[in-house]
Amino acid sequence: MFYTDNKLQYPVRVETPNPLFARALQQAIGGIEGEVRVAMQYFFQACGARGNNKFRDLLMNTAAEELGHIEMLATAVALNLEGAPLSMQEEAAGDPINGAVLGGMNLKNLLSAGLSAMPVDSDGVPFDMSHIYASGNIAADMTANVTAESTGRTLAVRLYNMTNDPGMKDMLAYLIARDTMHQNQFMAALEELGGAEGNFPIPNSFPQDMETQEFSYAYLGFQADGSEPAQGRWSKGTSMDGKGEFTTRVFKPLGDEPNLGKAKPKSGAQSQQI
Amino acid sequence: MFYTDNKLQYPVRVETPNPLFARALQQAIGGIEGEVRVAMQYFFQACGARGNNKFRDLLMNTAAEELGHIEMLATAVALNLEGAPLSMQEEAAGDPINGAVLGGMNLKNLLSAGLSAMPVDSDGVPFDMSHIYASGNIAADMTANVTAESTGRTLAVRLYNMTNDPGMKDMLAYLIARDTMHQNQFMAALEELGGAEGNFPIPNSFPQDMETQEFSYAYLGFQADGSEPAQGRWSKGTSMDGKGEFTTRVFKPLGDEPNLGKAKPKSGAQSQQI
Amino acid sequence: MFYTDNKLQYPVRVETPNPLFARALQQAIGGIEGEVRVAMQYFFQACGARGNNKFRDLLMNTAAEELGHIEMLATAVALNLEGAPLSMQEEAAGDPINGAVLGGMNLKNLLSAGLSAMPVDSDGVPFDMSHIYASGNIAADMTANVTAESTGRTLAVRLYNMTNDPGMKDMLAYLIARDTMHQNQFMAALEELGGAEGNFPIPNSFPQDMETQEFSYAYLGFQADGSEPAQGRWSKGTSMDGKGEFTTRVFKPLGDEPNLGKAKPKSGAQSQQI
Amino acid sequence: MFYTDNKLQYPVRVETPNPLFARALQQAIGGIEGEVRVAMQYFFQACGARGNNKFRDLLMNTAAEELGHIEMLATAVALNLEGAPLSMQEEAAGDPINGAVLGGMNLKNLLSAGLSAMPVDSDGVPFDMSHIYASGNIAADMTANVTAESTGRTLAVRLYNMTNDPGMKDMLAYLIARDTMHQNQFMAALEELGGAEGNFPIPNSFPQDMETQEFSYAYLGFQADGSEPAQGRWSKGTSMDGKGEFTTRVFKPLGDEPNLGKAKPKSGAQSQQI
Amino acid sequence: MFYTDNKLQYPVRVETPNPLFARALQQAIGGIEGEVRVAMQYFFQACGARGNNKFRDLLMNTAAEELGHIEMLATAVALNLEGAPLSMQEEAAGDPINGAVLGGMNLKNLLSAGLSAMPVDSDGVPFDMSHIYASGNIAADMTANVTAESTGRTLAVRLYNMTNDPGMKDMLAYLIARDTMHQNQFMAALEELGGAEGNFPIPNSFPQDMETQEFSYAYLGFQADGSEPAQGRWSKGTSMDGKGEFTTRVFKPLGDEPNLGKAKPKSGAQSQQI
Amino acid sequence: MFYTDNKLQYPVRVETPNPLFARALQQAIGGIEGEVRVAMQYFFQACGARGNNKFRDLLMNTAAEELGHIEMLATAVALNLEGAPLSMQEEAAGDPINGAVLGGMNLKNLLSAGLSAMPVDSDGVPFDMSHIYASGNIAADMTANVTAESTGRTLAVRLYNMTNDPGMKDMLAYLIARDTMHQNQFMAALEELGGAEGNFPIPNSFPQDMETQEFSYAYLGFQADGSEPAQGRWSKGTSMDGKGEFTTRVFKPLGDEPNLGKAKPKSGAQSQQI
Repeated sequence: MFYTDNKLQYPVRVETPNPLFARALQQAIGGIEGEVRVAMQYFFQACGARGNNKFRDLLMNTAAEELGHIEMLATAVALNLEGAPLSMQEEAAGDPINGAVLGGMNLKNLLSAGLSAMPVDSDGVPFDMSHIYASGNIAADMTANVTAESTGRTLAVRLYNMTNDPGMKDMLAYLIARDTMHQNQFMAALEELGGAEGNFPIPNSFPQDMETQEFSYAYLGFQADGSEPAQGRWSKGTSMDGKGEFTTRVFKPLGDEPNLGKAKPKSGAQSQQI
Repeated sequence: MFYTDNKLQYPVRVETPNPLFARALQQAIGGIEGEVRVAMQYFFQACGARGNNKFRDLLMNTAAEELGHIEMLATAVALNLEGAPLSMQEEAAGDPINGAVLGGMNLKNLLSAGLSAMPVDSDGVPFDMSHIYASGNIAADMTANVTAESTGRTLAVRLYNMTNDPGMKDMLAYLIARDTMHQNQFMAALEELGGAEGNFPIPNSFPQDMETQEFSYAYLGFQADGSEPAQGRWSKGTSMDGKGEFTTRVFKPLGDEPNLGKAKPKSGAQSQQI
Repeated sequence: MFYTDNKLQYPVRVETPNPLFARALQQAIGGIEGEVRVAMQYFFQACGARGNNKFRDLLMNTAAEELGHIEMLATAVALNLEGAPLSMQEEAAGDPINGAVLGGMNLKNLLSAGLSAMPVDSDGVPFDMSHIYASGNIAADMTANVTAESTGRTLAVRLYNMTNDPGMKDMLAYLIARDTMHQNQFMAALEELGGAEGNFPIPNSFPQDMETQEFSYAYLGFQADGSEPAQGRWSKGTSMDGKGEFTTRVFKPLGDEPNLGKAKPKSGAQSQQI
Repeated sequence: MFYTDNKLQYPVRVETPNPLFARALQQAIGGIEGEVRVAMQYFFQACGARGNNKFRDLLMNTAAEELGHIEMLATAVALNLEGAPLSMQEEAAGDPINGAVLGGMNLKNLLSAGLSAMPVDSDGVPFDMSHIYASGNIAADMTANVTAESTGRTLAVRLYNMTNDPGMKDMLAYLIARDTMHQNQFMAALEELGGAEGNFPIPNSFPQDMETQEFSYAYLGFQADGSEPAQGRWSKGTSMDGKGEFTTRVFKPLGDEPNLGKAKPKSGAQSQQI
Repeated sequence: MFYTDNKLQYPVRVETPNPLFARALQQAIGGIEGEVRVAMQYFFQACGARGNNKFRDLLMNTAAEELGHIEMLATAVALNLEGAPLSMQEEAAGDPINGAVLGGMNLKNLLSAGLSAMPVDSDGVPFDMSHIYASGNIAADMTANVTAESTGRTLAVRLYNMTNDPGMKDMLAYLIARDTMHQNQFMAALEELGGAEGNFPIPNSFPQDMETQEFSYAYLGFQADGSEPAQGRWSKGTSMDGKGEFTTRVFKPLGDEPNLGKAKPKSGAQSQQI
Repeated sequence: MFYTDNKLQYPVRVETPNPLFARALQQAIGGIEGEVRVAMQYFFQACGARGNNKFRDLLMNTAAEELGHIEMLATAVALNLEGAPLSMQEEAAGDPINGAVLGGMNLKNLLSAGLSAMPVDSDGVPFDMSHIYASGNIAADMTANVTAESTGRTLAVRLYNMTNDPGMKDMLAYLIARDTMHQNQFMAALEELGGAEGNFPIPNSFPQDMETQEFSYAYLGFQADGSEPAQGRWSKGTSMDGKGEFTTRVFKPLGDEPNLGKAKPKSGAQSQQI
């Protein structure tokens, strides 16, 4: 169950409203790297967590934090939209180039939301909840969370570099710090679950002698000229899960040309196929 | 540039066609954990790779492999759909319960594709390319790939457990082995890039003294009763990136209630808001 | 800012797990009438609320409640999925009709989520955040909320009628009661804002003498035979906003056939169009 | 069945073509508040209407009107796109700032549609038919229609305020008037069905003594500090449906921490969860 | 402008309601081969038609017809849903296998639409208006329409083969006949525009001497072993547009390995890439 | 199975990077007329091809070619993004108008992809795999491919006309030539399958005496005033499939007003409908 106190987790202030930066910030709300995504991802992972409850608690606690981040960013978007022109005339008065501000905004922030934030990305594409990764496998979930926080921090850094508004830089410096922690905390959860050797290959509950082990640690080459693919840590030495030895192998097809044969009559095919 | 030889990478054989299993296999083609996703993700990551070219080659080489996996699975779907009823009557003849097979299929596999595979998931939802994570940050990309292969192998294991067709089990045992390798190879790429300490927090090009470091390694608590959140490896000790020390802290809001003030006249608000 | 106590708002208990009912319940999570929708809608409306702050507080307070409803329903889905078959064989053992349970489930609940809830509807379609209506106009928002709670309660009633599990009926009776309140509370907010006469037509900030008033209260007929359209409260008498008198009028086109003329050279048209 | 006369319902004229305004107008075609939405919503509601046929007729008649509105707006978009630059050079010749017009347009209007309208919103996002609310409950449908016309008129007002083209203002003044009528006509339909007391809570066919009535008219508080939530018409007095008395109550969880227990073996979980 | 007479274009009758067939029919409403698609596609093509107006009229006239087809199919879906069980108990009473009918239905037809049609496909996926192809090029549009009617008639034939209800077979025989005509009428429009030689390659307004003509009629081979690709009418002889001679050529890359070089500092890349 | 050589099919060079043109090129990658679409469409058609295998080979061979086109265009996007401003300040330094370049870009190309290509269209909308038409009917598929190449070449021509960069014009001239060939090759496949008379109406496996032949070649008029619709090649003369004679007929409804009667109790309708 959730509670609110209507306050912002961290102060949000905008010295010079910038409607284009409002558009950029939308990516941090409704983009695939954004806060709606992480809030809902941790929430759904928590709801489906089986096994030791402390992982459920870690996830739900962090979901609560991320809800507060959405609130901060939505406030930042609204504040940046203050001063956006509402008409071609108003725009022309403030700026010699007709359309440069309106044209650079997400028009839906004005037309659909009346100068407020929306759960859309920086190009106005609504967030799609298929991006909520909650697999029922705790290690896969934690790995997905490290990914989400890595792209999330990368986005926050790009936004930080884009603006020179001191209020926005301050808010983003806080969010970047939190992403640092969240990357670390989900790696720590993986560590607590046994680290690379204890968890990988995910899922670790499948007996590896049932997979086709000849190919389990082979770096296969698909170069047209039959040459070896580019070498690296992945092509020789002990595998990262400690359970195999990397090899390299130029691959040849093991199967034949597939042939589905004739189409069934009455299946809507052409008569030439039947 | 790409080439084909029209052959299957690994043999695909179905002893007892099962239209419901065809539907389940669709998840491995067009699901978010599926092969279209990884093929296109590695492809786009390769196309945008900057820096040492061997990572580009690793990605493009693996993309070529994954294209072949789609081909295998699409063949498996078509073979499992052989024998699907084309009509209510045909179904009733083979099975006393009208609708049990047709009702359990993805009807689009019949109605739209004429008993062939489609780039949709097991509930008939088309794959959406927003799931292609290609961030321009090589470590974030590799982390995303470990995630993709972890959920991918989890899915393949669930499919393996669901069927008892020897041909399908053989094919899935091969795909599970390849996912084992791919989890390992992308972890190896991260290792080659410097491992956790060399890469995290991602992006490592942002000077950490510009983030609000007071919060960089603090596990913050958002429990309604003000208690500490559940403890674990993430709440004390050295951080996973080796750059900080985990602490725990019950959080209180640092900001005030946000107040956006009045709406602008002519912004389409109610007069009560202006 | 948000807080959690990890507890369920209301008890969730399932006496006889039913994977098909789990699928039906998904509509109440990720359907357009579902709880993710209302939680996020009230949240975004609150974040963009301008004018008297008590509406912001009403919205954010109710958003907190709805987050707890998602949690309840996600738990109910997971509990109903206990006992779902993991394989064709397991299914065949418990039930003479191969595929009747697996075929009736959302397969993604098993394949993607490992027997847990997802933010998708009862056909496995992910929730799309374009359904978050937050218009920046407080009366339009409140009207949208009455709509959301009306379709929400209709859905909850259909689910209540579908099941005979006492635990599920108890949980749904609670949710139905809350939808009763929420319909009423958002109508009350409209009342406090001035009711039909004070708010409509929305937005009330546009001077009505600037609209083409000849058509503002006319029920126009588009019947092919030129007859009057079906009469009702909408075709005569005082309008609901108290600002006009309903009339009925058979409509004839006031414009001509549109003619866009020739296509521009170099616009990619056929030469026959240029 | 439908008929056409190829004429515009109301004259559409553009004095000064403005490609950015074409983009804004797209919201009124393919946005969630747009005309495709209302045309298709009333159409599908009509097709599913059960009970007194006059509501079906009202809906289908209005659907016919709305189809004509799409036609008007599509013509307006095409006329505003006349004069859009087809190349960087053409643009540079007319305007000192390279890219300001092309950059502000929906490029798909040029690249995909050859300077014509598309069923997309002002950011180029295609309309998604999940926004067609047709619930099978006539009162819920009418409420949804009041909502659609409220956000529709809000959008039309914003567009009116954005342009100073006399032709466009004239067209929009007509559309705003029609939205005034449509808000009123659907409220009138609700009135004819019995008004707030006759219809609410929706659906009114569910016996209220089967809901958990203790919570049916209680305004529940979810404030972190346990204080009462903000008061208003919704917190005391007779409820809007006339069937209860509003109360206020600070809420405490009635359920416990959910515990899903162990994961099933073979469900693809980690062995630590099993 | 559009008019309605509320009548069905062709009689719709269902002798034995079948909820699973209702689900199948949904594909013909909201599938990519369905009637919403063609109605809206011809409508938008008409709205954007430049050049000879008779093509606009052909398109708008056919759009009106297709709207009537949606109406027929929506009625057919609702009639097939009569008799669907509303509860697990009701189902169990009529059918020994719990869940076989409910599990085979689109649950949204019941839960969201109250036993009515929706603009979704046979798996419950909503129609997405990006499928409206209206290119601004009249020949491309007509070709797209032949395609739409080809997949549309294929779908209608599959539905005809699936059912043995005489009323449904009669309705589908009518729709199949109309698709026959529509395939022919759009081919006739292409013929009137000059046929293959007059129209192809589309767009015919681009001077072919500006394309890289060495490759304009060459069938290029991408076989891994460097062999020629499979021969056919496409590999030698005069081209179908009459403007070239087909040749076959094994292809070798003309470009080098792409190299994007280093990432820009401050672009959010890893320091290893900069 | 697929192979790569990491080389570009054709040289890609950009003399003057232009971030707005990068955005336009995105349409050729992730737009519905783009290369992801054709690559995946031919790939899935090949995987489901039944009947003569040479069509499968034609399709898979061309899929391999199109994968190389994505690679070229993704490289072109990245090269055009070189020099995009990373901040408001950087932009302001190079250009007097703040926001004109950043505002005209797809911001996701910067924020999500770090100056690289994405599988999205020119407005940042991700490609949706429902656009992969693979019908199981070989003639319908080939017709769909002619359509795809027609809109594809139209798009390439528009892009060619938009830029004056010699490198980009050279690349596009190559792609336009390939689209010329692909239009021709798929028409040739139709010819080899028997041409219009041998294939149409599609599917040709349905006995035409089972369709309602009275309407199979009639151009039906839906003009409101009962006049004949606009005449053309489609209204008289032999039909294009050679199997009928075109006629024209003003249409009157053959069905009655539909009446679904009362709603079922417990179906969630209002009591007024029951």
